Amino acid sequence: MNDMTSRRSGGRAARRASRSAPLVDHLRPIRPGLEGGLYKPLSPEAMDRIHHAALDALEQIGLADAPPSGIAWMTGAGASLGEDGRLRFPRALVEDTLARANRDITLYGREPRHDMQLSGNRVHYGTAGAAVHLVDPEARHYRDSTVQDLHDAARIADQMDNIHFVQRPMVARDVIDNREMDLNTIYACCAGTTKHVGTSFTDPAFVADAFEMLHLIAGGEKAWRERPFVSNSNCFVVPPMKFATESCQVMEACIAGGMPILLLSAGQAGATAPASIAGAIVQAVAECLAGLVYVNAVKPGHPAIFGTWPFVSDLRTGAMSGGSGEQALLSAGCAQMHGYYGLPGGAAAGIADAKLPDMQAGWEQMCSNVMAGLSGLNMVYEAAGMHASLLGFCHESLILGNDMIGQALRCVRGIEVDEDSLSLEVIRATCIGGPGHYLGSDQTLMRMQRDYVYPDLADRSSPKEWVEMGQPDLLEKATARKNAILADRAAARFDPIRDAEIRKRFAIHLPA
Amino acid sequence: MNDMTSRRSGGRAARRASRSAPLVDHLRPIRPGLEGGLYKPLSPEAMDRIHHAALDALEQIGLADAPPSGIAWMTGAGASLGEDGRLRFPRALVEDTLARANRDITLYGREPRHDMQLSGNRVHYGTAGAAVHLVDPEARHYRDSTVQDLHDAARIADQMDNIHFVQRPMVARDVIDNREMDLNTIYACCAGTTKHVGTSFTDPAFVADAFEMLHLIAGGEKAWRERPFVSNSNCFVVPPMKFATESCQVMEACIAGGMPILLLSAGQAGATAPASIAGAIVQAVAECLAGLVYVNAVKPGHPAIFGTWPFVSDLRTGAMSGGSGEQALLSAGCAQMHGYYGLPGGAAAGIADAKLPDMQAGWEQMCSNVMAGLSGLNMVYEAAGMHASLLGFCHESLILGNDMIGQALRCVRGIEVDEDSLSLEVIRATCIGGPGHYLGSDQTLMRMQRDYVYPDLADRSSPKEWVEMGQPDLLEKATARKNAILADRAAARFDPIRDAEIRKRFAIHLPA
Repeated sequence: MNDMTSRRSGGRAARRASRSAPLVDHLRPIRPGLEGGLYKPLSPEAMDRIHHAALDALEQIGLADAPPSGIAWMTGAGASLGEDGRLRFPRALVEDTLARANRDITLYGREPRHDMQLSGNRVHYGTAGAAVHLVDPEARHYRDSTVQDLHDAARIADQMDNIHFVQRPMVARDVIDNREMDLNTIYACCAGTTKHVGTSFTDPAFVADAFEMLHLIAGGEKAWRERPFVSNSNCFVVPPMKFATESCQVMEACIAGGMPILLLSAGQAGATAPASIAGAIVQAVAECLAGLVYVNAVKPGHPAIFGTWPFVSDLRTGAMSGGSGEQALLSAGCAQMHGYYGLPGGAAAGIADAKLPDMQAGWEQMCSNVMAGLSGLNMVYEAAGMHASLLGFCHESLILGNDMIGQALRCVRGIEVDEDSLSLEVIRATCIGGPGHYLGSDQTLMRMQRDYVYPDLADRSSPKEWVEMGQPDLLEKATARKNAILADRAAARFDPIRDAEIRKRFAIHLPA
Repeated sequence: MNDMTSRRSGGRAARRASRSAPLVDHLRPIRPGLEGGLYKPLSPEAMDRIHHAALDALEQIGLADAPPSGIAWMTGAGASLGEDGRLRFPRALVEDTLARANRDITLYGREPRHDMQLSGNRVHYGTAGAAVHLVDPEARHYRDSTVQDLHDAARIADQMDNIHFVQRPMVARDVIDNREMDLNTIYACCAGTTKHVGTSFTDPAFVADAFEMLHLIAGGEKAWRERPFVSNSNCFVVPPMKFATESCQVMEACIAGGMPILLLSAGQAGATAPASIAGAIVQAVAECLAGLVYVNAVKPGHPAIFGTWPFVSDLRTGAMSGGSGEQALLSAGCAQMHGYYGLPGGAAAGIADAKLPDMQAGWEQMCSNVMAGLSGLNMVYEAAGMHASLLGFCHESLILGNDMIGQALRCVRGIEVDEDSLSLEVIRATCIGGPGHYLGSDQTLMRMQRDYVYPDLADRSSPKEWVEMGQPDLLEKATARKNAILADRAAARFDPIRDAEIRKRFAIHLPA
């Protein structure tokens, strides 16, 4: 109250300054893990039908190409191997797995303040993908992405409040050896951010080395296993309905090492999944249910994220169209199925088909991002920076994505309705004997910081102010922000002794 | 079936061509009037509380400044005039009005194919506003908007499938006389499009002339009254809780002439409405309920749109921020209240704070547009072209908005779940003895045109194709489209005899 009084006595400039000051965490208008779920594209009956169609698919069609170890684990749990080589899953096995699966997963950051608790409809946004190009928006140029680009992306994401995790968004194409690429990917991400990291492996033989590196980073195996800060983004299926043999072996190795698994089913509607949105969801759900059986057969309760990631084709050309409305519906529908099962889940949103961070990119990225949040998706992957339907990643776009996702999170937070927010007394006091406006009311001052989100780079000036400021360009502002972040060499790197140990053991491509 | 067979025999090029051919209307994947409503930001209890707070506000606080005629109409219906000059509305009067109000409104186009039937959660998108600048995105320049700009906007909107109506989006600042401005606004819009037009009047004395012009356009008063193709966007209140005396007189004159009324309450949260989102909705609902009582007192059952248009302030500066997440929530919450009452309603969405059609504009416009659609808003006003928080209108942005809104409409259409879309048999046939992909399946070919929306100008090429095409620029494509539309002088103009009649009677500023 004292604070409020002094705040109000300081005149307009002081008031503006205090309004712009950062708030303590629990008072911030937006936070990681806000509860979504008020957008429900599927009716309860529709979800039942999707569930039963997926059970039928698992029982009658099943999945081909499981590795021998997987066949052993899953037949041991109750699956049956047909003469056609397909593993089929009786309904009881799937229902049993669903009943016992881990529903309350924490994905750890290297700092506890970045931990993500996945349950209910708690929403988190982050990067992901396997872009092969870095996009230079000023030069309007696509070039091969490098390990330095990846590290820079992690360092930028580390500074973005609304980017909650850093799954590897692009491929380090300058690291030719696949083993070195996988290890340098982990190094580049973890050296750039203390947020949770996601990565993948090109070969099961590389996983042991990765754990050695992760133990070094964590300060020992015990510390790693207590708070595993890297998860395995695992494309365990090749849709439709085939296990990806090597990826399954990667998965088994990651489970043994205590790494959470993102069970990623990335069909493409109209190509590797049915063209209908409901059908693509059915197939993704069936495949992820098979993955869940697999994980729980290997290690009951191991943390697994239900990663139904169906993509969309532009059916005129067969090319992917991640920026479409159909994509936004697919991911939102999947989020609702995660809620149906009560399982922590993830899907893709925020992809632009646009080549550059232009108006098209803005509308494409917001459409799926806000719908994913409103539908209560726990993990919104590929939420920022992605262009050309995942082929390009753009640092400036990642920075602008932070503002965009902040806005989406404000929408996720929703509309609070209680006695104070209904404002009857405020309306009365304002209209009857009051000033006839709400500009200086206590309620306005109080809600200013707790309810309203202010973008960092997005422009809200009037045309007159905008001209006076020299017509600031959005992309130029983002580039300036990028340069400022990357100029600070100290941020997020490992401590020198640990770094030296890692560099002694592994061929690290980033300069020390 | 024959058609399908021949389509499939023609090779890839022929298939592509036939996939790109336009569909008959009822098979198009998106249409005006698709049903939204699956996003529900307010719980049933929250809506009850908002309703009751609004009833309390009307009964206890009431509205000041009604004109004498309005006081007579409303006290005649049961409102009471206090000694403080405020009209107060007993709950029974409001409930009675709600019970008898017109719930099934058609807003007519000059061509029947553009009629909009407002009921349930049927969604329509269109322009609106009072921008005072035209935005030239190439020159990065704001200049005063003219009657030619307005006419051009109408002509462009006429060609955009996903712009369903044309409410006057900007002010003809080169027409200095207010009477001439109002009349030329109607002329410029109606001469540019056969879609439904919305307009406003600066003075009740101008309304009679307007009807004379509308009768000339329609071919007589009878034809006008049978299919009134212009509605009156009427700011009947000056929030908080005061009638706008002159606008109320305009409203009475429009009702007498058979023109549908948009009851527009445009408070600004934190300035002329409470800073809390719920409070701003309460006040807007209360004001529109008062307007509904007014309209139905003058003429029971007269078509009125429940126009709760609360805007948002950036509370750091007090400036409007129509591109914010808070704005998207306000409009979506209002849409749900329209549904609560079962009344045809409208609100604002699609506003950008961005000065230019850049990435920020894209994410701002999509955020509120898609949430408005998903919440089932009947009339989404200001949905395209609006920049600088309504101060600027941009033709190129209007054209790009058509693609954006097409995508939003695809999301509104949602996910169909039935035996065919669940696709179990398609999955089975594909996986067991089939090709292992869905590229050529009957289902894919069938859904290609009926389920998928393809943008006109948005780019979906690969980085390689994009370079080969010379890196097409989104805004340049929009400018080229604009020039092509405006080059066709024949489109949408009145027939010459009618035009001559109008020009003989009124001072028309557009060249003949």
